[in-house]
Order: sequence, then structure tokens, then C-alpha cells
Amino acid sequence: MTFPVVGMVGGGQLARMTHEAGIPLGIRFKLLSDTPQDSAAQVVSDVVVGDYRDLDTLRDFARGCDVITFDHEHVPTEHLRALEADGIPVRPGPDALVHAQDKGVMRAKLDAIGVPCPRHRIVSDPQDVAAFAAEGAGEGHGEGDGQGDGFPVVLKTVRGGYDGKGVWVVRSVEEAEDPFRAGVPVLAEEKVDFVRELAANVVRSPHGQAVAYPVVESQQVDGVCDTVIAPAPGLPAERALEAEQLALNIAKELDVIGHLAVELFETRDGRILVNELAMRPHNSGHWSQDGAITSQFANHVRAVLDLPLGDPRPRAPWTVMVNVLGGDYPDMYSAYLHCMARDPQLKIHMYGKDVKPGRKVGHVNTYGDDLADVLDRARHAAAYLRGTITE
Amino acid sequence: MTFPVVGMVGGGQLARMTHEAGIPLGIRFKLLSDTPQDSAAQVVSDVVVGDYRDLDTLRDFARGCDVITFDHEHVPTEHLRALEADGIPVRPGPDALVHAQDKGVMRAKLDAIGVPCPRHRIVSDPQDVAAFAAEGAGEGHGEGDGQGDGFPVVLKTVRGGYDGKGVWVVRSVEEAEDPFRAGVPVLAEEKVDFVRELAANVVRSPHGQAVAYPVVESQQVDGVCDTVIAPAPGLPAERALEAEQLALNIAKELDVIGHLAVELFETRDGRILVNELAMRPHNSGHWSQDGAITSQFANHVRAVLDLPLGDPRPRAPWTVMVNVLGGDYPDMYSAYLHCMARDPQLKIHMYGKDVKPGRKVGHVNTYGDDLADVLDRARHAAAYLRGTITE
Repeated sequence: MTFPVVGMVGGGQLARMTHEAGIPLGIRFKLLSDTPQDSAAQVVSDVVVGDYRDLDTLRDFARGCDVITFDHEHVPTEHLRALEADGIPVRPGPDALVHAQDKGVMRAKLDAIGVPCPRHRIVSDPQDVAAFAAEGAGEGHGEGDGQGDGFPVVLKTVRGGYDGKGVWVVRSVEEAEDPFRAGVPVLAEEKVDFVRELAANVVRSPHGQAVAYPVVESQQVDGVCDTVIAPAPGLPAERALEAEQLALNIAKELDVIGHLAVELFETRDGRILVNELAMRPHNSGHWSQDGAITSQFANHVRAVLDLPLGDPRPRAPWTVMVNVLGGDYPDMYSAYLHCMARDPQLKIHMYGKDVKPGRKVGHVNTYGDDLADVLDRARHAAAYLRGTITE
Repeated sequence: MTFPVVGMVGGGQLARMTHEAGIPLGIRFKLLSDTPQDSAAQVVSDVVVGDYRDLDTLRDFARGCDVITFDHEHVPTEHLRALEADGIPVRPGPDALVHAQDKGVMRAKLDAIGVPCPRHRIVSDPQDVAAFAAEGAGEGHGEGDGQGDGFPVVLKTVRGGYDGKGVWVVRSVEEAEDPFRAGVPVLAEEKVDFVRELAANVVRSPHGQAVAYPVVESQQVDGVCDTVIAPAPGLPAERALEAEQLALNIAKELDVIGHLAVELFETRDGRILVNELAMRPHNSGHWSQDGAITSQFANHVRAVLDLPLGDPRPRAPWTVMVNVLGGDYPDMYSAYLHCMARDPQLKIHMYGKDVKPGRKVGHVNTYGDDLADVLDRARHAAAYLRGTITE
């Protein structure tokens, strides 16, 4: 066999769907999973159960892999450097990945390369937060509560947050105490007065080839991605191009290999600001499985293997993704009968995860010519699978 | 977990691609494979290595499966009956599957339900073949060689043939000896004067729901499927409908559960005759992975689980599939660079099989608005992967 082995660290749904996309290419997967029951471990043949925080485990795992890539951004930077020193290609590499691991490093780098971000500063204690807030008072960019003190302010631990965890919106100096309890550096950011959130997804290979997916609209509920619409409705072509070029530029400047998701705010006054970066297939790109010529997962595999990238253009005028969250009853399979009979074009993607309330356990994709219809179908299916509607 | 386990007997590429299609549905696969290196065994987590001809092995394997289905049609009928007696749903069931296992049984049944077939008869020896040939002399349906003896005639062993194996075209009584050496009953058929081969693919569920894919044109080289064009170019709508209804009727009358491929001859005088049946996902349906709303593999999974079936309609005006056969050099992966760079829309499906000359090791799909372009792209990629062209 001349086909390469991709070592995937992390057994979540992103690894599961990347494996699925690698099967037709004949790519062999080796998975490092926390447990044998993890989402990806259920569907991959070659699984090593172990702790990615342990360097010896990582080194053993990497033996026989042609390249290492990731389901998440939590592998310690020094471990990645050790793997590279062992001669194993790590993609994205540690120097790129640190920008997705540490929000302080990310903001400093984006400032340095001139990428527009929300006003931000590393803060040391609640009084410092108040000072940061006051600096922004009267600037007109924030959602000031009219008291002129510059609150509310967004506080984020620089490491470890996801899906709204590790993020606080504080309205006073008294509320600003919690984020400091973890002993992790805290980043303060202005609370951006945005009209909506967008995401620009790009994929870049070691050769420097890069492709940009159409910019999407991402709708969050309680800090968790709920709905993605591709392309973003009503986004002027020049602003879409600006966002794509911004993401391509970040990928190049940070030397990202693989998929890069750039989460964006579209502000009321017409600017595009970078919210977060993710260096792996991303929830805002799941629509591409059924809506694009080449999915984000297939292109991630191609990129980390330094293969030419696939066409990222959409196959339908509109594609909508809605996440399926766990609800009150655990039996989602029984909902298949209704959902599949109601909509024979529905695309269900389940992750093999036990249902827990609020947990992402799958998503659905729909596509078509009529956005209202496509949205309605996806939302109905996701709500029915969750159990929040029964007809 | 409330999600079912599908037991797949056979580790070939059809099992591999069915597993791939089951992943997004959250379906768990259990595979019975001849070896740990088989195509599907490389990508499935839960693999039992064993011999499907051994009933105890099958019974052990079936424990914990919610349904049993197949990558091939070689499991002995009596074993399938034993599994059913144990209470395991077998789909398709033995009474249906025997029609895909035994060409004599198939022809008798199709005659009984009035399905048009080539003239045929079970023959006992070369003299009987000559008699069969003579019965057809002067009928005008065969490709007579002008000698008026009714030859050539097609001889097939009733069991065990595939991809041209177990099939002989004989032009004289002397040539008719080989097929009888195996001691298997031999079916004689007229050599149909066809203008092309078509295939009608349908999927049927235990509920009796059925869907029909567009009828495709299937081009064979040396008895092996080479190119499939979906839909069949220039096929009049009424003849396409006739073929779809014929396949749906066969699925119903034979109580097929899952995917049924009906290979057809389109004759010079405008008739549609049934050539072969296959009761599993089929090479003539591989185009559906990238060209249909729901692939044959996804619909096979849905059917054997008695879930509502997905929309079989095409997503593009034309989709072309070309098989990739093994050539003279074993390293197909190195061809990816050229193929992917040349055609970013190309869809490669490799099976993880070692390259042997003439062996099916993968296929490519292309789709688009312009048939000539779509055909050219698929043929180029398949030839380049095989190594028969180098630019």
C-alpha cells in the first residue's frame, strides 16, 4: 500500500466526519481517542485509546503516521514541537495552532498583521476591567448601557474556552471577579454592537494553495452555534470578498495548514471584525458536506496531506445547517421515521453520542432554491430530533 | 444507545461504501470479513474475521446485530434460513436472494411474472446447446453469423459467475464443452442484438416503499463495467419509465429488501430485456454517491432498517462514473497530485485494495451540464490513475 496514514488526535465528531471524508480517498486513519466509545472511535478501524496530554502516548501513537492532525486544539504546544523534532509532520503546526489555543496570542498577532478586531486588552483584575471599560466609554462602538462607564465588557480566559464556556459578559466591576478565579490570564474585549455573526472558512496546504468557502451567516443561541446559512443572505459581494481575503490572509500570515474558520462580527456600522479562530473543521462549515462540491472535511484531509485542494463552491443556491442538541429524551433514532418520511431530501448527520440536554449530538443539512423553505425544513428536523416538537 | 447495529456480511468495497453512508446516520456497523485487510475491514471499527460459509461463524456474528445484509450474494441459502429461524432479520431474505444467486431460478421467476428476457433454457450438454441454438435460427433476434445454425449462444453457469466469469459466448457445438466441466447446471441464452446496456436501480423497504433511480447507460469492456452515464443519454421518457416500472415490479414480486440492480439490454428493435439481477448496491449505482440526492448506499441502509427512503433524483444534469482498474504499477496515490490539480471537482473513490492488473480498485465520479466534458473528465482521471496515460 502506498496510501498514507493520517493520525487524528481526538475522537470527537470532527474526527468522525473527517474519517468519513477520507474513506473515498483511500486514506488510512489512525485515531487517538480518550475512550473506545468516543464519536470517532465507533467508526474507525485503527484506534489507540490514550491521553493526548501525555507525550509518550503521543509519540507511540505517531509512529506509523505520515502526518498528525487534530479534532481539537488542546494538545500542549511543547508536545507538538517534540513530535516535529521526531520528524513527524504536524498540521497545523504548533506555531500556527497556538493562535487558536491562546486568545491573547491570537489578538496580538492579528493586531500585528493589521486585521480588524474588537478593542481588547489583557486585564489583571476587576479594577483593570473597569479601566478598560472606561477607555471605551463614549467611543460609540460598544453597546453602552447609557451610564457612560463603558460596560458591558466581554471577558475571556485566554485558554480553554469553547461554545460559550470561559466567556463572561460583565456589566460592572463587581461582576468582573469570576473570570479571574481560574488563575488563567483574562482578555477583555469591547462588547461589539454587531448585526450578525459571519464565518469565513478557508483551507490551506503546505504548498501554499488555499481555497475559500462562501462566507456564511452563523446564528448562536446561548453562545452555541444553532443555525448556519450558506451563503450569508444579503451580504454585499464586496464585503464577502473582504471577509474571504481576510481569512486567506490570516491563514497565510499564521502559516495555517488545513482548515481555518474565522468567526466574524458584522457591525452595525458596516465593519467586519474577527471574533475567534479555529484551526480544524468547524461547525460553521458542516453545511459543506451536502452543500459544497468539496466538503471542509475532505479539503482538510487533502490539505494536511499536501494534495491539491477541491472546489469549495456551493452546489445549491442555499444550504442550511442546524445543530441537533440533546433534549429531554434519549431516543433520537425513533424520530428518524417522521423526519425521513416528511423530507426525503433531508441530510442527517449524527455523532453516535449519548444524548445529554444541550449537548451537540448531530446536525442536519438541507439545500434548495428557496431559503425560507430550506430554513424551515432544517429547523423542523432539528427540533423534531431534539424532541421540542412532536409533529 | 438506541441506534441499531447493521451486520454486513462480506468485506469488499460495497461494504466499505455502505459503512461510509451509514456513518452520518449514526448507524453502527458490524462486519464479517474474510481477512482483516479486506476493503471494508480497513475502515470499520467492529470487524469479525471469519468464513461466511460456516453457519456457526454466521450465528456468532449475527448475535447483537439488528439486521443482516450483504456485500455479495454468496451466503448459502440454508444458512440464511437458519439465521431467520434464530429471529435475525435477513435483508434481502433468502427467498429473494436466491434469484440473484441462481440464474436458472431467476429466469424461471421472471418468465412466471411476465418480465421480458432473452430466449433461454437450461441445457444439459453441447448437443442440447446446438438444439437450443437451432430453435432460435431464423428468428431474427440473435446476432446470427449467417450460417443459420442459431449460433452464437451465450452459456452461463447458473451459480458463481460475476464480471464476465462463468459466462461463455460459443459459436459452435465444439466450443460448448467448457461450461459443462464444472458440474454446475448451465443456462443457454440467445446472444441478444443489443444497441447498449442499461441498468434500472431501485430500492425497496419492508414497508413496501420503493424508489427508482434514473435509468443509466452501462458500458462494459471485456465483460466488466467500465463507464456508467446517468441518466442514459437519449433514452425516450416512455422507455425509461418502462424500465423503472419493470425493476420496481421485480422488486415487489421477488420481495426484494434493499437495493436491486436490474441489468438490461436495449435491443436494436426497441425492446428492453432483463440480463442480470443483483440484490445489493451495484456498480451501476456508484454515480449516485455524488450525483443523486440520496446515494444507493444510504438508501440500502435505510431500506434494510425499514426507514423511509431518501430522494433518488439526480443533483446534476449528467453524472458519469468510470471504474479504475489496476494497471501495471501499484502506486495510484502518486497520481492524485495530477488528477486533483487538473480537476478540482473530481470525485475519487478508492477501495484500499492492492493493485492487480484488471482488478477493480476504485472509481471516479464527475458531474455537470455538458455530457461530453463530464465524460472526458471521468475517463481521463480513471486512465491516469490506472497509468494508461501520463498527462
